[in-house]
Amino acid sequence: MDETPFDDDSLHEECGVFGIFGRADAAALVTLGLHSLQHRGQEAAGIVSFDGKQFHVERHAGLIGDTFTKQSVLERLPGEAAIGHTRYATTGGGGLRNVQPFFAELSAGGFAVAHNGNLTNALTVQRELQRRGSIFSSTSDTETILHLVATSGARHFNDKLIDALSRLEGAFSLVGMAPGRMIGVRDPLGIRPLVLGELEGSLILASETCALDIIGADFVRDIQPGEMVTITDSGIESAFPFQARRSRFCIFEYVYFARPDSNVEGRNVYEIRKRIGAELARESKEMGDIVVPVPDSGVPAAIGYAQEAKLPFELGIIRNHYVGRTFIQPTDSIRHMGVKLKHNANRSMIEGKRVILVDDSIVRGTTSQKIVQMVREAGAVEVHMRIASPPTRASCFYGVDTPEKSKLLASRMTIEEMRDYIQVDSLGFVSIDGLYRASFEPERNPHAPQFCDACFTGDYPTALTDFDGADNVRQLSMLGGNG
Amino acid sequence: MDETPFDDDSLHEECGVFGIFGRADAAALVTLGLHSLQHRGQEAAGIVSFDGKQFHVERHAGLIGDTFTKQSVLERLPGEAAIGHTRYATTGGGGLRNVQPFFAELSAGGFAVAHNGNLTNALTVQRELQRRGSIFSSTSDTETILHLVATSGARHFNDKLIDALSRLEGAFSLVGMAPGRMIGVRDPLGIRPLVLGELEGSLILASETCALDIIGADFVRDIQPGEMVTITDSGIESAFPFQARRSRFCIFEYVYFARPDSNVEGRNVYEIRKRIGAELARESKEMGDIVVPVPDSGVPAAIGYAQEAKLPFELGIIRNHYVGRTFIQPTDSIRHMGVKLKHNANRSMIEGKRVILVDDSIVRGTTSQKIVQMVREAGAVEVHMRIASPPTRASCFYGVDTPEKSKLLASRMTIEEMRDYIQVDSLGFVSIDGLYRASFEPERNPHAPQFCDACFTGDYPTALTDFDGADNVRQLSMLGGNG
Amino acid sequence: MDETPFDDDSLHEECGVFGIFGRADAAALVTLGLHSLQHRGQEAAGIVSFDGKQFHVERHAGLIGDTFTKQSVLERLPGEAAIGHTRYATTGGGGLRNVQPFFAELSAGGFAVAHNGNLTNALTVQRELQRRGSIFSSTSDTETILHLVATSGARHFNDKLIDALSRLEGAFSLVGMAPGRMIGVRDPLGIRPLVLGELEGSLILASETCALDIIGADFVRDIQPGEMVTITDSGIESAFPFQARRSRFCIFEYVYFARPDSNVEGRNVYEIRKRIGAELARESKEMGDIVVPVPDSGVPAAIGYAQEAKLPFELGIIRNHYVGRTFIQPTDSIRHMGVKLKHNANRSMIEGKRVILVDDSIVRGTTSQKIVQMVREAGAVEVHMRIASPPTRASCFYGVDTPEKSKLLASRMTIEEMRDYIQVDSLGFVSIDGLYRASFEPERNPHAPQFCDACFTGDYPTALTDFDGADNVRQLSMLGGNG
Amino acid sequence: MDETPFDDDSLHEECGVFGIFGRADAAALVTLGLHSLQHRGQEAAGIVSFDGKQFHVERHAGLIGDTFTKQSVLERLPGEAAIGHTRYATTGGGGLRNVQPFFAELSAGGFAVAHNGNLTNALTVQRELQRRGSIFSSTSDTETILHLVATSGARHFNDKLIDALSRLEGAFSLVGMAPGRMIGVRDPLGIRPLVLGELEGSLILASETCALDIIGADFVRDIQPGEMVTITDSGIESAFPFQARRSRFCIFEYVYFARPDSNVEGRNVYEIRKRIGAELARESKEMGDIVVPVPDSGVPAAIGYAQEAKLPFELGIIRNHYVGRTFIQPTDSIRHMGVKLKHNANRSMIEGKRVILVDDSIVRGTTSQKIVQMVREAGAVEVHMRIASPPTRASCFYGVDTPEKSKLLASRMTIEEMRDYIQVDSLGFVSIDGLYRASFEPERNPHAPQFCDACFTGDYPTALTDFDGADNVRQLSMLGGNG
Repeated sequence: MDETPFDDDSLHEECGVFGIFGRADAAALVTLGLHSLQHRGQEAAGIVSFDGKQFHVERHAGLIGDTFTKQSVLERLPGEAAIGHTRYATTGGGGLRNVQPFFAELSAGGFAVAHNGNLTNALTVQRELQRRGSIFSSTSDTETILHLVATSGARHFNDKLIDALSRLEGAFSLVGMAPGRMIGVRDPLGIRPLVLGELEGSLILASETCALDIIGADFVRDIQPGEMVTITDSGIESAFPFQARRSRFCIFEYVYFARPDSNVEGRNVYEIRKRIGAELARESKEMGDIVVPVPDSGVPAAIGYAQEAKLPFELGIIRNHYVGRTFIQPTDSIRHMGVKLKHNANRSMIEGKRVILVDDSIVRGTTSQKIVQMVREAGAVEVHMRIASPPTRASCFYGVDTPEKSKLLASRMTIEEMRDYIQVDSLGFVSIDGLYRASFEPERNPHAPQFCDACFTGDYPTALTDFDGADNVRQLSMLGGNG
Repeated sequence: MDETPFDDDSLHEECGVFGIFGRADAAALVTLGLHSLQHRGQEAAGIVSFDGKQFHVERHAGLIGDTFTKQSVLERLPGEAAIGHTRYATTGGGGLRNVQPFFAELSAGGFAVAHNGNLTNALTVQRELQRRGSIFSSTSDTETILHLVATSGARHFNDKLIDALSRLEGAFSLVGMAPGRMIGVRDPLGIRPLVLGELEGSLILASETCALDIIGADFVRDIQPGEMVTITDSGIESAFPFQARRSRFCIFEYVYFARPDSNVEGRNVYEIRKRIGAELARESKEMGDIVVPVPDSGVPAAIGYAQEAKLPFELGIIRNHYVGRTFIQPTDSIRHMGVKLKHNANRSMIEGKRVILVDDSIVRGTTSQKIVQMVREAGAVEVHMRIASPPTRASCFYGVDTPEKSKLLASRMTIEEMRDYIQVDSLGFVSIDGLYRASFEPERNPHAPQFCDACFTGDYPTALTDFDGADNVRQLSMLGGNG
Repeated sequence: MDETPFDDDSLHEECGVFGIFGRADAAALVTLGLHSLQHRGQEAAGIVSFDGKQFHVERHAGLIGDTFTKQSVLERLPGEAAIGHTRYATTGGGGLRNVQPFFAELSAGGFAVAHNGNLTNALTVQRELQRRGSIFSSTSDTETILHLVATSGARHFNDKLIDALSRLEGAFSLVGMAPGRMIGVRDPLGIRPLVLGELEGSLILASETCALDIIGADFVRDIQPGEMVTITDSGIESAFPFQARRSRFCIFEYVYFARPDSNVEGRNVYEIRKRIGAELARESKEMGDIVVPVPDSGVPAAIGYAQEAKLPFELGIIRNHYVGRTFIQPTDSIRHMGVKLKHNANRSMIEGKRVILVDDSIVRGTTSQKIVQMVREAGAVEVHMRIASPPTRASCFYGVDTPEKSKLLASRMTIEEMRDYIQVDSLGFVSIDGLYRASFEPERNPHAPQFCDACFTGDYPTALTDFDGADNVRQLSMLGGNG
Repeated sequence: MDETPFDDDSLHEECGVFGIFGRADAAALVTLGLHSLQHRGQEAAGIVSFDGKQFHVERHAGLIGDTFTKQSVLERLPGEAAIGHTRYATTGGGGLRNVQPFFAELSAGGFAVAHNGNLTNALTVQRELQRRGSIFSSTSDTETILHLVATSGARHFNDKLIDALSRLEGAFSLVGMAPGRMIGVRDPLGIRPLVLGELEGSLILASETCALDIIGADFVRDIQPGEMVTITDSGIESAFPFQARRSRFCIFEYVYFARPDSNVEGRNVYEIRKRIGAELARESKEMGDIVVPVPDSGVPAAIGYAQEAKLPFELGIIRNHYVGRTFIQPTDSIRHMGVKLKHNANRSMIEGKRVILVDDSIVRGTTSQKIVQMVREAGAVEVHMRIASPPTRASCFYGVDTPEKSKLLASRMTIEEMRDYIQVDSLGFVSIDGLYRASFEPERNPHAPQFCDACFTGDYPTALTDFDGADNVRQLSMLGGNG
């Protein structure tokens, strides 16, 4: 059985995190926060609450709105502090073992942690810990954090956590909870987002500002790269316990992952996407009659493109939102028919037109091929494809589920070969400097890039200890990234 | 527990139908056809197949893509002919009893029927049939058709069906199946759509053309109002067995129900919606800075409005597509917070702007109130609401789930009162003639209206036998409409 | 996959019925009554209650104690009158369609009926009704009763029911419910049991007295063969509307179906079973060292045998009660190992002994073969099998799920051949007269047998209209017996 | 909601273990072995298999025959070695976390362990391990074994395990599995049973011999108290690595826990139970007319009693085997009726008789009270109760779920008070020496008791480190015993 092919051909953010401290109904508010972060992971979610004495843990596969909103589930999560996590994949047969937050009863007391990002030396550290006698109950890199805290020789809890994180490489935006405190940390590069909010005096940590909006909370500020905040009944304390480095926020959050209504690192995502569309229009020479987005992710860039190019913006492709992630194509013979489960071209809009098609990125290229064929069959006389990011040429090791490099279309073809492969009259990607300009930078600083753009440039900002040497792929399959 | 309030405040089409004759994998193709008609009903679906000897019936609650795509389900539906139905609601405790298609083993052989529409004298006829000894196993009006066929004195099968339908009032677009034949019928007014398609020689009946597109089938023609087609191995035969009447297609299919990529009665739905937006712009005197649709249904009209008014079209409101129909608001105190489960305003786009908000219709007005409040809180300096249909003043008895008349905002308020109620600076509805113009008619012919527009005008094109007299509401609750 | 082979080799009673009138918590009491009748059918159950205005229907697959005891289920069954039914099989793909009680809204008002027994002309009558326009929604013979009531020309409700039942052949012990009344009927031969009980003034109808015991109700009397009782707020009325016939109670109820603690037709089941064992001992010439029952059904007869023969009664075979009906033998190779899923011989008790093995009946003989082999492998030096019923030679058409005649071991072998087939040193069945004596009759009256013993004698007390002629088997598969 | 009260009033063995080495279909055979050990725990089960490279883990709540027999489950358990565990309770909200076998990937390789018994210093050791940095993922004492192995400084695997077990107190009959080996260990006192079997050359470890019988395997011998056996492709090796002590097998295994067809420590359980019944008869002075067992556990002792006393053995109480553990008494008013969900007296057998009632033990006394009342209401003129064990006065800390001491009837009443409480004419318990005699010992040696009989005598054979001091109850609730 083959699952929806369209879904296989996009990148998946693996996690969203949310925590609130000092508020009745804490778990219910986490539920809402995670619901608004559902685009960062749809497969499973977990919430841990603390009622002043005990921790309570719930983990469920499925959408928040279907699992965590039952009264009975919320009643099992009492307390005025709670943190939660939503994730993209429960890979392998592990069932709910890998669903976060992770929780352990340490000798220092209980500790729960929810992690967005991915560690690049977790496997190496895990092996050391196992040699010492630690037993791992999941295949998630996040569990490594718990064991490092548990075995740290430091005396105070925050010092144990700093000790643990100092030994790790990679991306981590964490929300942690110990008795009487909620802790937020961003890795020194600030690869993944993390914001601070407030609801009637209660402090909130969340991956994106849209999770503050849903409950009417105010945005306070971004947690800084390398910052650790500790929230207690006495308020919030900030520290910068790691060696300072220049920040490298993931630029793909702007291109695709973050919700358009979120403000990330001070910039509005929808606005940046429209600006990328405008850059694309300026960099493009071809003319068309209408600008058509590949819905839904291509819509803001297409609007920006159409406004800049002064061409009509039209919904020439309709998306069926009832396709879940589990739609199975019923039979073999039908699979070969190339059915349009998710998108359908609107012939009336397209017939006889020169169509400028706008999408956010090309991963394997299989979806683009199908979309273009569909648009041609609907009568387009020319199809020009414009992509709101540079060619995706390298894998991400910081919490995004990318196919291995060899499957990325741009890693094995020139742009002309790609144009031929997806059968368009012209193909254009926004330039890397255009992308930086749209993101309010003058251009990419090649000596000290302002963002992590490794998926476009292969320029990784951290060591990749677990992935060095010949056996990367095997190692990767042994220790799944988790968020 | 309160379910998503937003969903309560829109109208729901109750049914979509699809059938295919003479093709291996018939049931699998019906699955795909129903998937593309999922917008016409999300709660439950059924498929009946005929394998040359026996009929096979499957009914499931939930989305097609989650229920009917399992190999085991399709294996229980063998045969080269199959019909299916997707429906909005399984009201009451009846479980799957009311899920169509209905099937009965009659003395003349098996007969299955799937019905889009609603009969307005089903209860009256049902009582007569019960007096005669017929036993009803559902509360659906569609079962009445089966009993009338079963008790008809006519000799040939098609005559029995004509006999049965001649006794019924209301809207019916039917797909039926008896051994060796598939039958399509539209009521004399043609209130609900029904189209004929073809896939490599096999004939198809479907509610909308988008259900042909998904499997790459060709559109042949609309079934005519009052037409009955009989599809057998020898081909298709057409008859017009009912008294001829001037057609009255449901104009709300254009406004909201049909998918924008469908062509209905020869016109493209997306195009009509854009034209309604343009009419609205022409009829409107107020100025704004940006045109913002209430997603998703307001999008095409907003595009049309923006193009006509030469104003920027912007996604100022973002929709969370992960809200299923079952999202339960977790606690009482949270319910009163007015959380933004489904929509969020994009402050960066809206702040300081005069916003022209475009939506398809106003039913109870509760959603509009919340949306407007959200847009104001995001910093809009003026909010002007434009509605792509005339005020909805009367209930539908032809297959749409409308609240009772007294709950329709427009039935109890003037436009100025409504403007005040939803707290906008100005409120405009497209005129009835504007709507007809957008639908390619010169204007509404008051003596012989070209469409059924009863929800706007109260001008019902059929008798309403079951609903006459004082006890309408009670009767309605006893016999649910079904499709 | 092969389900428990042991279970395939016994006869299954198909139904138990229970109703109570005029008591708060009616449905909860029906739940308990059905629980105590669970031995008469384990696959599915249903309850219909009447709250003075409306009927409420619940049907569930599985054991009563797992399905109907949930608070939410009982809350959906309000009212002071309720009837219920438990059944052995939901044959075919019909799901819950065939689960009783059946209910219909007739022009005369609602009517629910629960039926223990089987009609032998239901198919013939069904065809007549279909010709007339009746639509059947199940494949159960019981639905025929509803349609005959619905189409009866009689004026009063009871007369409609008498009219309906007069047209039917076979076995029926019914509990019916219409507004304001509960009705109990037994067919003129009284083939299946039905008793009247009382709990603090409220009257009860039940298949067996053990269903009265569980709730502490008093036994009033057996409903008589051919009797119809009508229970209303004014009390109970009795009538004998059918032509009088000499009664023919099913003697297999004593042998196997009824619970040992029930009194049926004035006699205690456990006592009769012990008396059968004593008859067996008297009719038997072989000697043994110990008497070992095949648990659980052989236990009472083995006790009676041991007491009469003055031999020790020993549990030489232990039964595993955790075998549900669904235990699937895991793999092919294991299936051929002949694993002891349900019974295990207790070697310490059996080794070196001459074992007299007592069982209730032999159906296909496959279980007996396995049991005997197991006892021999445990070291028995001789195995003598004694069966507490005569050879089962003919199928039952009155509500028992018997294999077709050709699969009954006794229909194709002599006793000596059977002895050889199951590999015992001697094999004895109780004589038909011995069975009658144990049942407190002097002997079988061959001209007017006091019981229905058709499964032993082939002497059927009613016409078998549906089963005459060459195509019995096909017909049977088209219309399942139901209780 | 109140669950079946009868079930609350008996003792529950918490675990059964089974392993097989060197045989295709290993997991399927474990399934069957666990099925025959289902009486030792019904709530949940787990199986771990090893396919030569990888370990595979499955855990499910429910009966083996309902969960592990699905083809899909067995296909996820490939390999020629597998071990399994069935357990009584998944206490608390831990879900499947506490279901055994436990498995961990240690630096030395994978290790799985299934444990029958209970450790009496697990909590104390756990705290030490946590201080050292170990993270526990369950509340089961068995996980402590894994951590001690993981952190052991010994070099070879078996030495690590010996090192670990040497630090633990209490009862443990273990089956472990590491790559290439299966290990069986019994604690030095041999409190719980463990036997060695063989099936066509493949070796088996199981809690009881009935688990060998089900698959036709041969019994080889009991694993000795304090013995560790290591099974590899080269055969079996035996070692006695712990300090030698005189064995103290749990005598309650004979009284109630073990299956009657098992041979334990060289003695047949059914035979010992009959001998206890005979001792009871000899120690009893009262006369009766019939001997009636409380089914099912009282049956063997009642047979022994009746044979010794030369009185008729009769099934005067019938048990309903369809009562699952989850039967919920439907309503409050019904709960007060004292319904007979599980047992019913057979009035015909009991009326007018002097009844000698035989049961295995009295825990809280609530069941005995109800049974006696039921027997009296059925017309017994005298009721004499005889119990096949001495009064149960103390809690078990070795793997049996006993109520706390204060709830044990015999810990707070004299026998005369108990007689009065359960309202019998006489009450007798077998003497402790009678019980030893029935178990083939001349008498109890008070200086060196041959069995663990702590539940009758309070004489615990091990230290109870976790339970010393004032806060027993709290500690117990923090660390559940597991098997």
